[in-house]
Amino acid sequence: MDINSDLGESYGAWRMGDDAAMLDIVSSANVACGFHAGDPAGILQTLKNAASRGVAVGAHVAYPDLVGFGRRNMDPSSAELVGDVVYQIGALQGLAKAAGTQVRYVKPHGALYNTIAQDARQAGDVITAIQAIDPTLALMVLAGAPLVDWARARGLRVVQEAFADRAYNDDGTLVSRRLPGAVLHDADQIAERMLQLVQTGEIESITGQRIRLQADSICVHGDSPGAVEMARSIRQRLAQAGVSLQPFVAMG
Amino acid sequence: MDINSDLGESYGAWRMGDDAAMLDIVSSANVACGFHAGDPAGILQTLKNAASRGVAVGAHVAYPDLVGFGRRNMDPSSAELVGDVVYQIGALQGLAKAAGTQVRYVKPHGALYNTIAQDARQAGDVITAIQAIDPTLALMVLAGAPLVDWARARGLRVVQEAFADRAYNDDGTLVSRRLPGAVLHDADQIAERMLQLVQTGEIESITGQRIRLQADSICVHGDSPGAVEMARSIRQRLAQAGVSLQPFVAMG
Amino acid sequence: MDINSDLGESYGAWRMGDDAAMLDIVSSANVACGFHAGDPAGILQTLKNAASRGVAVGAHVAYPDLVGFGRRNMDPSSAELVGDVVYQIGALQGLAKAAGTQVRYVKPHGALYNTIAQDARQAGDVITAIQAIDPTLALMVLAGAPLVDWARARGLRVVQEAFADRAYNDDGTLVSRRLPGAVLHDADQIAERMLQLVQTGEIESITGQRIRLQADSICVHGDSPGAVEMARSIRQRLAQAGVSLQPFVAMG
Amino acid sequence: MDINSDLGESYGAWRMGDDAAMLDIVSSANVACGFHAGDPAGILQTLKNAASRGVAVGAHVAYPDLVGFGRRNMDPSSAELVGDVVYQIGALQGLAKAAGTQVRYVKPHGALYNTIAQDARQAGDVITAIQAIDPTLALMVLAGAPLVDWARARGLRVVQEAFADRAYNDDGTLVSRRLPGAVLHDADQIAERMLQLVQTGEIESITGQRIRLQADSICVHGDSPGAVEMARSIRQRLAQAGVSLQPFVAMG
Repeated sequence: MDINSDLGESYGAWRMGDDAAMLDIVSSANVACGFHAGDPAGILQTLKNAASRGVAVGAHVAYPDLVGFGRRNMDPSSAELVGDVVYQIGALQGLAKAAGTQVRYVKPHGALYNTIAQDARQAGDVITAIQAIDPTLALMVLAGAPLVDWARARGLRVVQEAFADRAYNDDGTLVSRRLPGAVLHDADQIAERMLQLVQTGEIESITGQRIRLQADSICVHGDSPGAVEMARSIRQRLAQAGVSLQPFVAMG
Repeated sequence: MDINSDLGESYGAWRMGDDAAMLDIVSSANVACGFHAGDPAGILQTLKNAASRGVAVGAHVAYPDLVGFGRRNMDPSSAELVGDVVYQIGALQGLAKAAGTQVRYVKPHGALYNTIAQDARQAGDVITAIQAIDPTLALMVLAGAPLVDWARARGLRVVQEAFADRAYNDDGTLVSRRLPGAVLHDADQIAERMLQLVQTGEIESITGQRIRLQADSICVHGDSPGAVEMARSIRQRLAQAGVSLQPFVAMG
Repeated sequence: MDINSDLGESYGAWRMGDDAAMLDIVSSANVACGFHAGDPAGILQTLKNAASRGVAVGAHVAYPDLVGFGRRNMDPSSAELVGDVVYQIGALQGLAKAAGTQVRYVKPHGALYNTIAQDARQAGDVITAIQAIDPTLALMVLAGAPLVDWARARGLRVVQEAFADRAYNDDGTLVSRRLPGAVLHDADQIAERMLQLVQTGEIESITGQRIRLQADSICVHGDSPGAVEMARSIRQRLAQAGVSLQPFVAMG
Repeated sequence: MDINSDLGESYGAWRMGDDAAMLDIVSSANVACGFHAGDPAGILQTLKNAASRGVAVGAHVAYPDLVGFGRRNMDPSSAELVGDVVYQIGALQGLAKAAGTQVRYVKPHGALYNTIAQDARQAGDVITAIQAIDPTLALMVLAGAPLVDWARARGLRVVQEAFADRAYNDDGTLVSRRLPGAVLHDADQIAERMLQLVQTGEIESITGQRIRLQADSICVHGDSPGAVEMARSIRQRLAQAGVSLQPFVAMG
């Protein structure tokens, strides 16, 4: 099984998250590319730390919106979106080369992540961008989203991810953050829940039903001490149960 | 002989230069990387146009200063400068891949170009960055500058360039723009002067002496109709005299 | 009658429009505030030129999107949008003070202009921002849009504008740019059309009907030589017919 | 006596410092203006908090360098620097109006602060900018710097500040951060030192001499829990000794 988290999100004098702690927990690191977060020197340091620990690196590409941290919807043209995604992947590939590692996958961030899960036009632009720079890169997506089939139909390898601290509807979609119970907080319960998902391929929905969820990776947060602790609990619970953690890509 | 020019310097809705016209004149294109100019979609289009004409592409890396167009001195730390240069080269490599071409050399822009010609610390950082991402990239520099030896001592291929419209001092340095006669304007005279440089390896200094100048490439401007016309004159004068124009790198 | 145009849209080394020419034509200048275009030194120069000609100045506020020139939709939170609008108006007020003039009105730009014409939430945020910094500022809006009533209901002075080179539907809305005939090109016809609008309060719709249009100002473009020529034609046609041009605000 | 600190330095999703805690300690707040730190919504909130506590607000203007946090030297032209300073003061004035307070002084930040303490050209540009937007604004400067006389000669009110946690040379300049002992760490010792400065107008230099230091305000940091604690100690020590704390400007 694979555990992924968003890293490299500091910017200049501003710190975000505890990259060093998270790199001891995750097997895959979604590294910011400078459009929503991450300055080149900071990204390079995070990539070196990932390389020394054998953690796989993905390009966490985003809309160009530093002040909004890539969380605000935008409507770029196809030419703009393709260009922005290629630019970010290329920049991270360059820094990864300098750090002695390489970019293995692409995980869109924030508003871009949510938009392309459902929006065929922008999804198509992101797929076009990946194929233009390196068609062997995997695309990490929301498990069960329409994007899964769109990306596969165009030949991309797809990695589906589950969110450790989020509740699911009966149809496998995420419960909206605006509804009560959308976000889970009990670290032990979450760790147990993720273990069951890994062992059975099923998860309990918010109504108590067991539903199937195809998850190739588990997404955890690292932006607060509590979040780091929760991520560590999941890793430990999986390890105790004999689930081996490794990137979904070969790190040869 | 090689002729190079700065291209890809439009930004979003703002146009700069006539890239299409210049790509029919030059053999090497210094393409902006987004830090002083150039948005990803526009850069990608310029790279496609360069690829279709067989023009070699270099990374025109700069300080992060859009509003100042990279022309203002800055004092980044070594970690910042190395990161910034790797990031920009990587981004351009990614876009070049998507455009069906590749980055062959690095030419720093504006204030960074002038600073590293003389400043050993920042020069060393730029060299470190190039070696970290791709040590086969050539570095284009001011002919005769201290940087020439610094870069060679660390194993980089160096390409020295002459400036078509600038006067030279007896010691081979450029006459300061603040002095009268620093910038030449007569297209025919400039074309003849460049032909002599190519044929003899010598150029007439501002005091009338003939001085040696090692020039592997001639830098021309394309940011005004007059500049494009001057560049075309140089190309034609060299062609008439039987000087073949081609990138200084093999375009295999 | 008043004629307005977008000015101050150069950015650093990039030029846009012919501000000097347009300031001899318009009575009101919508001056960029740095978020979609305009650097402080350039804005200040445009404001000085406006002041010396007695042209009224408005704050051309926008989403924070330089590379997209403020033309892309965004969904800022209310706190973000209020803050962004106050910040931009304040910055322009400061520069206007330094230039010996003052900001008289606010005209949102691009995607923000189109969005708040119809979107009550973002419209409310812009109104809140104006009232927080200076409730005497007028708001320039698309003639006949829902925003007209929303702004008046909250006590703002509203200035409605007609677009000189755009066709109108029977209901007074603009014909979409995606449809044929949406944009008019004949300078004489456009000048005549604007004169009739001023004299009768009516305009011919795209289907040939005469419709009422409440226009306190006419918006013209200045971003190309042809556009400047068209603007001059309108001014001259109005002057010939004895229509006096002056800002909609007193310039005491 | 007055105590000042840098506030409003968060940016979008990134936090910096504990503004709420510091606003209970200081009498003057140097508020970021968006060029080195501070987004409009966050600045507005800090200004509202300052207003509700009766803390005086200054414009913490900086070079345009977010990723470098305004700490890197730059060489803007006079037109650029004047424009940038006016723009930032104006933006903060607008937000202050919306927050129910007003800007009382200007304190340049980081590299700009250090540069204009000694550099007559850039100092002159900052003074020109302040006089262009509001000549009643005070300028907060390094105690004893050449800038003190330059600003007074042009009619500006000058507020000199001492740095609580820095050692001083015999000539009243700051000991360089590169030298041992440049930064003080003992909160009690620092508080006592500041009390003596307030009571006697003298401070002990790094060589043990008592030197005169004209200080109208004491600068404290708030970017770490330890820094907040140190600031609180100084305030308390002054209060115990009967020194009343209040802004150097009347808050009528």
